Amino acid sequence: MATLFITMGDPAGVGPEVICRALAALGDKAPARLVVVGSREVLEQAGHVTGAEIRWAAYRGPGAAPPQMRGFELIDLANVDRSWWQPGRLDARCGQAAYEYIEEAVRRCRAGEGQGLVTAPINKAAVNAAGHHFAGHTEILAHLLGVRGVAMMLVTPTLRVVHVSTHCSLAQAIERVRPERIERVAELLIEALEGLGIADPRVAVAGLNPHAGEGGLFGEEEDRYILPAIESLKGRGFSAFGPEPPDTVFLRAVQGQFDGVVAMYHDQGHIAVKTLGFSQGVNVTLGLPLIRTSVGHGTAFNIAGTGRAYEGSMLAAIELGAEMAARHE
Amino acid sequence: MATLFITMGDPAGVGPEVICRALAALGDKAPARLVVVGSREVLEQAGHVTGAEIRWAAYRGPGAAPPQMRGFELIDLANVDRSWWQPGRLDARCGQAAYEYIEEAVRRCRAGEGQGLVTAPINKAAVNAAGHHFAGHTEILAHLLGVRGVAMMLVTPTLRVVHVSTHCSLAQAIERVRPERIERVAELLIEALEGLGIADPRVAVAGLNPHAGEGGLFGEEEDRYILPAIESLKGRGFSAFGPEPPDTVFLRAVQGQFDGVVAMYHDQGHIAVKTLGFSQGVNVTLGLPLIRTSVGHGTAFNIAGTGRAYEGSMLAAIELGAEMAARHE
Repeated sequence: MATLFITMGDPAGVGPEVICRALAALGDKAPARLVVVGSREVLEQAGHVTGAEIRWAAYRGPGAAPPQMRGFELIDLANVDRSWWQPGRLDARCGQAAYEYIEEAVRRCRAGEGQGLVTAPINKAAVNAAGHHFAGHTEILAHLLGVRGVAMMLVTPTLRVVHVSTHCSLAQAIERVRPERIERVAELLIEALEGLGIADPRVAVAGLNPHAGEGGLFGEEEDRYILPAIESLKGRGFSAFGPEPPDTVFLRAVQGQFDGVVAMYHDQGHIAVKTLGFSQGVNVTLGLPLIRTSVGHGTAFNIAGTGRAYEGSMLAAIELGAEMAARHE
Repeated sequence: MATLFITMGDPAGVGPEVICRALAALGDKAPARLVVVGSREVLEQAGHVTGAEIRWAAYRGPGAAPPQMRGFELIDLANVDRSWWQPGRLDARCGQAAYEYIEEAVRRCRAGEGQGLVTAPINKAAVNAAGHHFAGHTEILAHLLGVRGVAMMLVTPTLRVVHVSTHCSLAQAIERVRPERIERVAELLIEALEGLGIADPRVAVAGLNPHAGEGGLFGEEEDRYILPAIESLKGRGFSAFGPEPPDTVFLRAVQGQFDGVVAMYHDQGHIAVKTLGFSQGVNVTLGLPLIRTSVGHGTAFNIAGTGRAYEGSMLAAIELGAEMAARHE
């Protein structure tokens, strides 16, 4: 059985609550050995407010037998103190704690103790206030693992989308639409789809401009940059299609015409996925030497501590991570 | 009762078929006096293949009594000939015919015979081959009516979106994100929503960049151009919100938080609307001195002549046009 480390995320966010709810829902039916990296104090409080109290056992390494009877393992970094921690309140010390969970989980994976991470949400402002200057999890992981050329995939029950660029301005995103990057991102998507058991996946590459440029009338990026990438993918035997009109390609994928879509910029993919309204959406980082899945939502400070956060996305992230890890082993 | 002219669109497209189906479905319950501008020969053939045969009566002017017993009025321009017309085949003569239906309908409206147009799809290539160089209906109408500053609104049962720009490259679209244009487009949306009976409509203005720029981190258009437009709208007493993160604003509108959304570019709004998959989506041109609604689909040459085209969008376009016209009278 694969091992996944679940990082607790920002202690002041909804991460601890969705972890408790998700683990309680899984009970003895966990799809992998799940080890939480976090703070026992915070998790016990989260178990209390959600009514999903977990019997925590200290993690004793890969060789030790995991706990029976609906218990779960915990690596308690004991880095949160009730004197300053308060759900819903932004605090640099919470940002520091969240960063340490990720570091610890990565260290364990590199030591061969597990196949990957399932991450609860961090707060970017808190992490930056703690002196770690990153746009998000993806950038932290790329840094800790020393890799470049990662890509973000959004996964819902009916749609899988990878992005040529994510956290930059739209003007910069246009500059990043180049054949090498498109081809690399499409390859990562194909690899991920194959990793989910889809043989010869059909991948649609979206255009950048309205109507995919309407034959050059509304922009030339399709002809200059996107088409060459698609031709190269086809030449290598992949089932790549496009450039497809961006406004209909996502519905066509939902309807089963494609297994995945390469989006040219953040909102192209995100508008499609978010408008579909899946509360169980999962975020996957591709191109890392380990598996990383994540909830699709943020820290939701406005409801943290109330026990109202919904665990659907965390459950889906655990299940997808386990599925990828099982095939990866 | 208001009068609407329904233009038949490209004779080789699905326009004639969806018109026959929609009128047959309406029967004696038409929400307005509906006068088709087209070709009797083509419409009779469309009635035959769809099984929705309409009893056509020649239109005899605004004063004449409209036909009873499920009949509909027709202005037959007799500009299509069976010797060259074939459903599904692109032909410059079809483009010319389609252009003439629009001209005739506009002329009738300007003469005070009706409040507006409901348009069936034209084929841009055919219209251009006929020597009329326009990107689509919107541009033709703006030309015929001598107006500038029109905007395209997409309407579905749960979402209304107007666009700051439409048929241009994404790079050009970024250049068009300027306060004057945003404010003008928002005003057109507010006016249209009020015209649909919504008092003090809540209008969300989307950002341009991911996360609406994340406080300037991913682009400065929000602060420089979008926020000033919103402030100006608020100062004039309108309920304007934003800049809102583009990936969630459409779902929030669907869920009832906003009555309409101002999208910064074509695909921002179109991805949301199309991914929701409404086959009854309607296109509305705002800023014209007459009402214009349109089906959300194209000529669909691939199924033209088979009788398989679905009339949902035409029905919705007729109903929305009639609703706007009734309040307009």
